[in-house]
Amino acid sequence: MPTYSYNATRLIQGVLAGNRRDLARTITLFESRNLAHQEVASDVMRGLAPHAGGALRLGITGVPGVGKSTFIESFGIYLVDRGHRVAVLAVDPSSRLSRGSIMGDKTRMEGLSRRDEAFIRPSPSGGTLGGVAARTREAMVACEAAGFDVILVETVGVGQSETTVKGMVDFFLLLMLAGAGDELQGIKRGIMELADAVAITKSDGENRELAERARKSYENALSFFSRDRKVPVVTASALDGKGLDSLETILSDFYTEDKASGALEHRRKKQQIDWLWALVEEGLMERFKQAPKVVSLVDEMVAGVEKGEIFPGHAARKLLDRFSG
Amino acid sequence: MPTYSYNATRLIQGVLAGNRRDLARTITLFESRNLAHQEVASDVMRGLAPHAGGALRLGITGVPGVGKSTFIESFGIYLVDRGHRVAVLAVDPSSRLSRGSIMGDKTRMEGLSRRDEAFIRPSPSGGTLGGVAARTREAMVACEAAGFDVILVETVGVGQSETTVKGMVDFFLLLMLAGAGDELQGIKRGIMELADAVAITKSDGENRELAERARKSYENALSFFSRDRKVPVVTASALDGKGLDSLETILSDFYTEDKASGALEHRRKKQQIDWLWALVEEGLMERFKQAPKVVSLVDEMVAGVEKGEIFPGHAARKLLDRFSG
Repeated sequence: MPTYSYNATRLIQGVLAGNRRDLARTITLFESRNLAHQEVASDVMRGLAPHAGGALRLGITGVPGVGKSTFIESFGIYLVDRGHRVAVLAVDPSSRLSRGSIMGDKTRMEGLSRRDEAFIRPSPSGGTLGGVAARTREAMVACEAAGFDVILVETVGVGQSETTVKGMVDFFLLLMLAGAGDELQGIKRGIMELADAVAITKSDGENRELAERARKSYENALSFFSRDRKVPVVTASALDGKGLDSLETILSDFYTEDKASGALEHRRKKQQIDWLWALVEEGLMERFKQAPKVVSLVDEMVAGVEKGEIFPGHAARKLLDRFSG
Repeated sequence: MPTYSYNATRLIQGVLAGNRRDLARTITLFESRNLAHQEVASDVMRGLAPHAGGALRLGITGVPGVGKSTFIESFGIYLVDRGHRVAVLAVDPSSRLSRGSIMGDKTRMEGLSRRDEAFIRPSPSGGTLGGVAARTREAMVACEAAGFDVILVETVGVGQSETTVKGMVDFFLLLMLAGAGDELQGIKRGIMELADAVAITKSDGENRELAERARKSYENALSFFSRDRKVPVVTASALDGKGLDSLETILSDFYTEDKASGALEHRRKKQQIDWLWALVEEGLMERFKQAPKVVSLVDEMVAGVEKGEIFPGHAARKLLDRFSG
């Protein structure tokens, strides 16, 4: 079967013109593992990159059950109604393995996906978290080049992917439920501390008062952590749209301020450099663990360390010497 | 000048007999960078290791001003009075550079240092955090072999060293001040979440009520974070000894329980394996960054990534290929 062949120039033109089909095709190209595709992908990237960077990049997380898709859909529609062009991407390294993955199904955001000013793309499937994140970064560049000015990057709320997404967005929003009890137990350690803002979802009807109480508690709890700036906590409802306006104000104030001061640019550059080193580290470890001469020694060293017979420092040195030698 | 020469057998015997001078000498040997010393050090390690592991390893942190030395001194004396043998170690990678380093001066714990059942050792100076931590781990083994049954590992409360210390202790205690305001701003993000217990220090005299209020606030704040077990918050005073008994009860209950269930052993094994991989990673990055063929390319790649001309993934691949090639 002949491989589908892409035309770099046509794709670049299409994306820059805001053609959604070309945008989708470009992202598929970026995700391809085919070597010939990867060469075209590099060309397309080079063509698009100078036109990227113009969006607010917003990471959104929250445990399953918090109403993430519903929230993103109504916030997305709200933004589109206010004149924005909204792209929704996702980072979900589990998406191939588990059925509980996010955005496997566009129909979960049916209203938003019907809007011309919106673009929804499920998580690239398979591969490491690093791989999925890399594809999502590339998709972000394409979406920005296509003129989307708000990029929502959704993540799963359980595991390492939050830290990764935090490293590729300007602002990180944590969705929480009212009621500080068992429902919250799913929030992984450290995720609360990544948040630039918290929204208490499902703040409607009888739940409203509970949500307001939760808001105050969270605000108090967050004041215990040292941050560059205050972390606002808002209540929001996807049902009646309450709180979406406050959220938009928070975001646009943040964006305007950080853009004017240069902090946005500075943070993005730092994210790129951090990302470079993270990839180098990941690549080094991968090459190390796959090196045949290392493989044959690893089990022995690990067993020795576990039994307390070999010191970690000694084992590490032996492994490193074997790798380099 | 001839190098001081160590006798492994004599040192092992001395340490196992609980001789404090031999213990101090052994730790100095472990810290030596002299190659001949390092060989003797390995022998001594092998002799001591089977006798290690019998202590509760307690990490203690808190920002400067929280009264860390004073707290450790009174808690140390309290434990010694209750029949324990207490060793105080420190992890402070800044100790060579800054004057604000911890435990540069034993006289700060004068009362404790005069007790025969106590042993105080300043942070090994110089080197990376990894290096300092490795030396402290080794010192811990020696102290345990010498019969100390409580090891207090002090750390600075600002930076990466907390995570490192968390990875080498059984229990991590965070010292905090009453008053949730500016004084707390020094607590780095993520440190609160490492704590297995929090102690509000200087809870005496007029400060008592304030400390009790802070205790409740912290307890509330901590309930927002998902943990395997509840994180107790106590008030304590180095002045009148208040709260030291509750703290001892918390620690001994924890130790007894985790020892009986096997959780202690399991956690320590995992810490050793994690440590092994952290050292491998650190070593790989070090070798990578020092490889001449990489060095010549790094600046170019970093500059390109910063300017947005080269993608981090592309730069990482180029650097990795240069390293392996």
